[in-house]
Amino acid sequence: MSIHSINVRNQFRGRIKEIIHGPVVSEIDVETPHGIVTSVITTRSVEELGLKPGTEVVALVKSTEVAIAKI
Amino acid sequence: MSIHSINVRNQFRGRIKEIIHGPVVSEIDVETPHGIVTSVITTRSVEELGLKPGTEVVALVKSTEVAIAKI
Amino acid sequence: MSIHSINVRNQFRGRIKEIIHGPVVSEIDVETPHGIVTSVITTRSVEELGLKPGTEVVALVKSTEVAIAKI
Amino acid sequence: MSIHSINVRNQFRGRIKEIIHGPVVSEIDVETPHGIVTSVITTRSVEELGLKPGTEVVALVKSTEVAIAKI
Amino acid sequence: MSIHSINVRNQFRGRIKEIIHGPVVSEIDVETPHGIVTSVITTRSVEELGLKPGTEVVALVKSTEVAIAKI
Amino acid sequence: MSIHSINVRNQFRGRIKEIIHGPVVSEIDVETPHGIVTSVITTRSVEELGLKPGTEVVALVKSTEVAIAKI
Repeated sequence: MSIHSINVRNQFRGRIKEIIHGPVVSEIDVETPHGIVTSVITTRSVEELGLKPGTEVVALVKSTEVAIAKI
Repeated sequence: MSIHSINVRNQFRGRIKEIIHGPVVSEIDVETPHGIVTSVITTRSVEELGLKPGTEVVALVKSTEVAIAKI
Repeated sequence: MSIHSINVRNQFRGRIKEIIHGPVVSEIDVETPHGIVTSVITTRSVEELGLKPGTEVVALVKSTEVAIAKI
Repeated sequence: MSIHSINVRNQFRGRIKEIIHGPVVSEIDVETPHGIVTSVITTRSVEELGLKPGTEVVALVKSTEVAIAKI
Repeated sequence: MSIHSINVRNQFRGRIKEIIHGPVVSEIDVETPHGIVTSVITTRSVEELGLKPGTEVVALVKSTEVAIAKI
Repeated sequence: MSIHSINVRNQFRGRIKEIIHGPVVSEIDVETPHGIVTSVITTRSVEELGLKPGTEVVALVKSTEVAIAKI
């Protein structure tokens, strides 16, 4: 199934720089123009999507998950 | 209370471009060097933090909230 | 940008039954074989995606967001 | 403590099909009448709740965690 | 359906102090021994559960949603 | 970067009681005056923040992540 558009407003396009594999979840570090964006997803998804360093991906974040801090 | 460091790996620094106020939650659009990052937080927090267009902030996202899509 | 595959393991396909519009966020009720799946997204996303009752969509949930209860 | 009702609108009832145990978190695959729903919870919770294949459970998802994609 | 136990490790028991009603979501402030715990849930859930100031509730948070900051 | 204030309304101050280290994520148990608050964060963050039993921290939860149950 191909998705044509998604409501997720925050989309960070880049290439996978590194994957740390664990037995249940894995860490995916994506190199984007914003810097590294880090994601934790199931290791099964990593395998099913065939993710590896160099794969072109988009990191997606729902707006309700974004916190705001004053600096 | 000042926070010295936070575990949240994904931090996007910028200035607030626009706030859409609602009775319970508000949308905060943060202009970063690489595009808009959107957040939905309680309107009470907007008031307590004194957020308004131009305020310098950092948008924070926990790694477990980041999804990955292949493009 | 078309997305070819996404790591989100929980995908519920259906049609939008009802939308409750708010100033910042809206509730989307999707009729699926599992029953109604409810989502809260930004009203801006509802408009940008052109969502309305009858639109065919997929509701997506990251595994780390799913809680388990014994009954 | 028994919970009489919960605000979580999205509830998927089924039986555990498989558990992938990790040192910190575990993946729980719940077989529902309309497909597998996957959850990642702490391994401590798996032990405290006594979850194993065959256990009857309900998978719960808060509406604010559900994304919507057009297909 | 009564729930006997839930994997959510963080449970804050208390009484509702205040509700701010919105058209789609509402803010629930729960007075607990930890201080006020604030939740944003759908207004429909507020109505279906019959929540009002004084109602005894438990606020639930999944461990993967908790961030840690050094102070 | 020091953060002066954050929109996250739910803040639980305490000391780390125990850390369960995993290859990708770790569980942090924080002893607060009113009970244990549990968090799952990346093991990299644990190392970068130098977290260990006894470290004084604040556990942070966004209001949209808090569910409400009637008891």
